[in-house]
Amino acid sequence: MLPAPYLLYLGDVTDQIQVKTSRGVAVWRPELCVGQYRLPGSGVDLGLPEMTFAQARAVGAQTLILGVANVGGVMGQGVIADVVAALDAGLNVAAGLHDRLEDVAVIREAARANGVRLFDVRHPPSGVPIGNGRPRAGRRLLTVGTDCSVGKMYSSLALEREMRGRGWNADFRATGQTGIMIAGDGISVDAVVADFISGAAETISPARDDDGWDIVEGQGSLFHPSYAGVSLGLLHGAQPAAIVMCHDPSRPHMRGLPARALPSLAACLEANLAAARLTSPDVQAVGVCLNTSALDEAEALRLCEATAAETGLPCQDPYRHGVARIVDRVQACFATSAS
Amino acid sequence: MLPAPYLLYLGDVTDQIQVKTSRGVAVWRPELCVGQYRLPGSGVDLGLPEMTFAQARAVGAQTLILGVANVGGVMGQGVIADVVAALDAGLNVAAGLHDRLEDVAVIREAARANGVRLFDVRHPPSGVPIGNGRPRAGRRLLTVGTDCSVGKMYSSLALEREMRGRGWNADFRATGQTGIMIAGDGISVDAVVADFISGAAETISPARDDDGWDIVEGQGSLFHPSYAGVSLGLLHGAQPAAIVMCHDPSRPHMRGLPARALPSLAACLEANLAAARLTSPDVQAVGVCLNTSALDEAEALRLCEATAAETGLPCQDPYRHGVARIVDRVQACFATSAS
Repeated sequence: MLPAPYLLYLGDVTDQIQVKTSRGVAVWRPELCVGQYRLPGSGVDLGLPEMTFAQARAVGAQTLILGVANVGGVMGQGVIADVVAALDAGLNVAAGLHDRLEDVAVIREAARANGVRLFDVRHPPSGVPIGNGRPRAGRRLLTVGTDCSVGKMYSSLALEREMRGRGWNADFRATGQTGIMIAGDGISVDAVVADFISGAAETISPARDDDGWDIVEGQGSLFHPSYAGVSLGLLHGAQPAAIVMCHDPSRPHMRGLPARALPSLAACLEANLAAARLTSPDVQAVGVCLNTSALDEAEALRLCEATAAETGLPCQDPYRHGVARIVDRVQACFATSAS
Repeated sequence: MLPAPYLLYLGDVTDQIQVKTSRGVAVWRPELCVGQYRLPGSGVDLGLPEMTFAQARAVGAQTLILGVANVGGVMGQGVIADVVAALDAGLNVAAGLHDRLEDVAVIREAARANGVRLFDVRHPPSGVPIGNGRPRAGRRLLTVGTDCSVGKMYSSLALEREMRGRGWNADFRATGQTGIMIAGDGISVDAVVADFISGAAETISPARDDDGWDIVEGQGSLFHPSYAGVSLGLLHGAQPAAIVMCHDPSRPHMRGLPARALPSLAACLEANLAAARLTSPDVQAVGVCLNTSALDEAEALRLCEATAAETGLPCQDPYRHGVARIVDRVQACFATSAS
């Protein structure tokens, strides 16, 4: 669990895409963010107070979120120097890079010298068990997708927000590095050893008996030949009572594979439900989330309506329309009440 | 690739199960085995000439196969001393334990001092790529299963032997530690990082254009909630033209999960074919292999006949009956000819 509150690192990054993790934390956990740290020349702004490491520490910040990415996930010398300065100011540091903070000697030594901690969220913890598939208490909703990067994390967080807004107990369960930074906890399931995929999913969404929901962040797609093993293990381990299908209608082909078409929504729903029944025999589909950012408002609404008619499920763009209709369907199917 | 020929290590093991890897190499690659090394008190015998490390080296042995297992895959002090002695005699050493040979300082140093190599076959090589699912040349047959440990490796090796006996080009492609020791090559797919499962399968069975077959060793089962992700990634990466279903009719429940029944053969065949079509649209099932060791000869034959009638596929116990009928079916379906 990452100690909050946070200072969000932007560094000298000028590209919005490169700060997507810091931005995600600012958007979804604003109550945990005390400020942002930028270098001269940075072109991005999360709208938080500008702070030095010492200023952030003085107002109570516990952890610097190194929520920036660059090619290959490697840290440059400037970033390393900033991390050491943050540690020297008494902040813990969390990063989601391929390079481990722990593996950089000056960083490791600065953490030890200052009595603070390093969190490499891309790297799974040790001791993840083998999955067992035994039925467990509680209700879980898993977002699944026709492809990678179609909005599963965003949709999951929107569902958590909508449920909490209705007074339900609901917890986003993170399975990827950006999600883990936002949740402050989780396991990067695509980084565990293959035998432990379903065990990782079981670990992050343990039994619960408070009539609440775990909203488990999906990964990949059963139809993506590079990553379907991760998606299937996650589906079995999450043991979902409900699934929400995420889709990007503007995607011309499976991500990274120009020759490969996306599956139909119907085929993708059916395959996910069939596979999910192994550990959750009564699983139901409760909605479709579309990323309609390539469409104008009228087209977006028309497509959501057509998709709802085609699938028999509520269909919304969570960014444009929220997910109220999908949560209405959850309520209708599961008689979930405010706690 | 493990340098052959081999000396097989039995040590002081008294339990047949604990030498299953050494036995597998002796049974399936006898032409590569020059001898066995036993300590006083060992109760097992592979029928090979007894040799010291120096004697084995003198008759040309290149590698000591440490094909023994004990609880937890940990090496005792006696085994470590034997490994060092083998290295000092000029042998390479290959092991399939959880503990890495490389991680034991005296072993690492002895290998370096003697200019010989260590092979930790349970641990995947670095540089395995992400799978891409692109169609590749050549024909691959994958063994799949209703459960773990139902004879997929044995069936694969029997298929290779039968095909080679007919003059076909055929190569067993190993995906587990025992298989890798037998093949001398391969990747332990359940030990790769989850994102790389299908990439590992693509790597071990590259494109071929000699009208031959790769026989890819299956792992786990799409119906085992602990390991199905591995099975699916392997299915997608192997891109099989043909699958053979392996089953143990005496198994009371899924391995390790007393409350979970095995799937029907029909359901398991259909699920594997449906999933395999993502990367191999014309995939066909060509046979069923049963492990009938719990039955008498007449019962075994009756069950094979009943299973063949039920599935419309040739059904044999590879240990009792061989796999000739299944390879006949491969020949009928694919017009494979001797090269």
